[in-house]
Amino acid sequence: MNNRLQKLSQWMRENDIQVTFVTSPDNVFYLSGFLSDPHERLLGLAVFQEEEPFLVCPAMEKEDAKKAGWSHEIIGYSDIQNPWEFIQTSIQKRVGKVNKAAIEKEHMNVERYEAISALFSGASFASAEEKLRQLRMVKDEKELEIIREACELADFAIETGCAEIQEGKTELDVLAAVEYALKKKGVNEMSFSTMVLTGANGASPHGTPGMTKIQKGDLVLFDLGVVWNGYCSDITRTVAYGDINDKQKEIYDTVLKAQLAAVEASKPGVTCADIDLTARNLIAEAGYGEYFPHRLGHGLGVSVHEYPSLTETNSLLLEEGMVFTIEPGIYVPGVAGVRIEDDLAVTADGVEILTKFPKELQVIK
Amino acid sequence: MNNRLQKLSQWMRENDIQVTFVTSPDNVFYLSGFLSDPHERLLGLAVFQEEEPFLVCPAMEKEDAKKAGWSHEIIGYSDIQNPWEFIQTSIQKRVGKVNKAAIEKEHMNVERYEAISALFSGASFASAEEKLRQLRMVKDEKELEIIREACELADFAIETGCAEIQEGKTELDVLAAVEYALKKKGVNEMSFSTMVLTGANGASPHGTPGMTKIQKGDLVLFDLGVVWNGYCSDITRTVAYGDINDKQKEIYDTVLKAQLAAVEASKPGVTCADIDLTARNLIAEAGYGEYFPHRLGHGLGVSVHEYPSLTETNSLLLEEGMVFTIEPGIYVPGVAGVRIEDDLAVTADGVEILTKFPKELQVIK
Repeated sequence: MNNRLQKLSQWMRENDIQVTFVTSPDNVFYLSGFLSDPHERLLGLAVFQEEEPFLVCPAMEKEDAKKAGWSHEIIGYSDIQNPWEFIQTSIQKRVGKVNKAAIEKEHMNVERYEAISALFSGASFASAEEKLRQLRMVKDEKELEIIREACELADFAIETGCAEIQEGKTELDVLAAVEYALKKKGVNEMSFSTMVLTGANGASPHGTPGMTKIQKGDLVLFDLGVVWNGYCSDITRTVAYGDINDKQKEIYDTVLKAQLAAVEASKPGVTCADIDLTARNLIAEAGYGEYFPHRLGHGLGVSVHEYPSLTETNSLLLEEGMVFTIEPGIYVPGVAGVRIEDDLAVTADGVEILTKFPKELQVIK
Repeated sequence: MNNRLQKLSQWMRENDIQVTFVTSPDNVFYLSGFLSDPHERLLGLAVFQEEEPFLVCPAMEKEDAKKAGWSHEIIGYSDIQNPWEFIQTSIQKRVGKVNKAAIEKEHMNVERYEAISALFSGASFASAEEKLRQLRMVKDEKELEIIREACELADFAIETGCAEIQEGKTELDVLAAVEYALKKKGVNEMSFSTMVLTGANGASPHGTPGMTKIQKGDLVLFDLGVVWNGYCSDITRTVAYGDINDKQKEIYDTVLKAQLAAVEASKPGVTCADIDLTARNLIAEAGYGEYFPHRLGHGLGVSVHEYPSLTETNSLLLEEGMVFTIEPGIYVPGVAGVRIEDDLAVTADGVEILTKFPKELQVIK
């Protein structure tokens, strides 16, 4: 069994859980190396304290799972077979009657929960999600290498977007050009819906790109990321189109100062809250506290939002191998919206900044 | 209450259900007119037999819900509030103790199910999904108008894709150009991941576009759709790049003949199975039965896959206002993959074909 499965089994022994049945594509991928999203069909991975784990997937994906490196049992089922019966038999064969099982309670739907509850009547169900989040939080070197590549592609996307800005172009024009360039590099999935927001739209932390034309004197905010070999990147840059006014400039400088300070403060042993507050206090001191309404950042990896969560109350200590974003923002309606976001990996004594597009204000003429 | 809510309430009266709590963005949109995906945050719509329904959403979305035309109560909650407490109070105020509730068991996760079960201890939970699927199956004129527009954009996408085919271009090059052109028309979401498949890749019904270059003598398969004002389109066309061989031509002609016959057979009072078998038998007679491994089509609307399902065993009768795809395909490994798909709306005495891109073999020189 690989190292990740061993850690999960260890947790199961400590908590007297006989079987963990993992069903979210992200966690199945993390634990098995097999990346698949069979939509409404069932994909599952059963893990035990000591016994051999097994994978359940549509029969037509069995070969893909082997190719992905899964060397343990695979149960393939066709569209006219009921996978739950196979699962029940295979679990019973390994551990007999199940008293306590773990599932992903935020991922599994009620219909499947009723199916699995019926198979193991009398069993109690714990949630494996928190443990899996903790496991995924610290990345190994192989994961870091993939994330570095994903971040390089994110840098490239921002570069492309900046080159595309021109009088008369809309947010969607620029967005389309960015995704076009990425697709030509072999990227076939974004981490989330790409944002290109200009003028007043940028002042909403969750705006939707549309047909608004970019005009001289506007700030343009890009927030995007790619999925690359199963891992996500996530970058935000805000650039100026032509000359911006003093107020916009002041807001930009404040966000940049906060971002740099938070990056500088990041190292093993510091709490997530410390990092958040480093940025948050600087923004508050500059008088923009009420315009920074979200957390400083979030972990990323197989999911674009995972642990650690950089909030002002999270006392979790940073640890080598954690990967997260630092993305302070200030959104003053009618004036400006600025956010600057990097992806970082914690090293032995600080951080490696994975996204490298310049952060000094870029003015596009 | 609108007509859709009234029908749901009627079903609740018949089944003695005191409250239906709908949480999937698609069904909330269908019933309330409010289109929103708050991701991990809770969005919910509570419907009753007689009492006024209410909507629950993040506080920052309250105004959007009103603008979308929702005129009943809206409960907004902030990130530090527990929406379940508000929900419990508001439901109890209307109907007192709940004995039987309905939820979407395929959509709701176990965590939320445990939360709602705790609020209404002793209540039994039925699934509202089947009823909602039935309600959504028959479209009104307003819905049809939006779907027509979505289909026009799908036609435009195929046109764009065909114009893009050239020696040396990859599947992803063409795909990127198609989505670029759509974004410039204001489309910001596709119904599903766009497929552009060429040569051997087209012979897999679920291929993934990649860096394969399009070559003379290849068939190129496009399968795509747009989301437009909350509704989906879905079109497939297979075109030839240069001269194709007789076998490819024979396969194309067989699929086309099956597709045309199934369209011709579609009208109120005919079963879904009849339509599926009309196409399936023609393909089997031509000797390609084993190479047509999927159902003939599926309903579409707010979701890209909804009722009716056109399988060879579905005895459901077609009814005016139903919207679905007809998409026979033949996939012979190493030889050719061809699929031709239209979206159709059932009329009083036949069907309206909503996707209009030509189906005679288009040969791109």
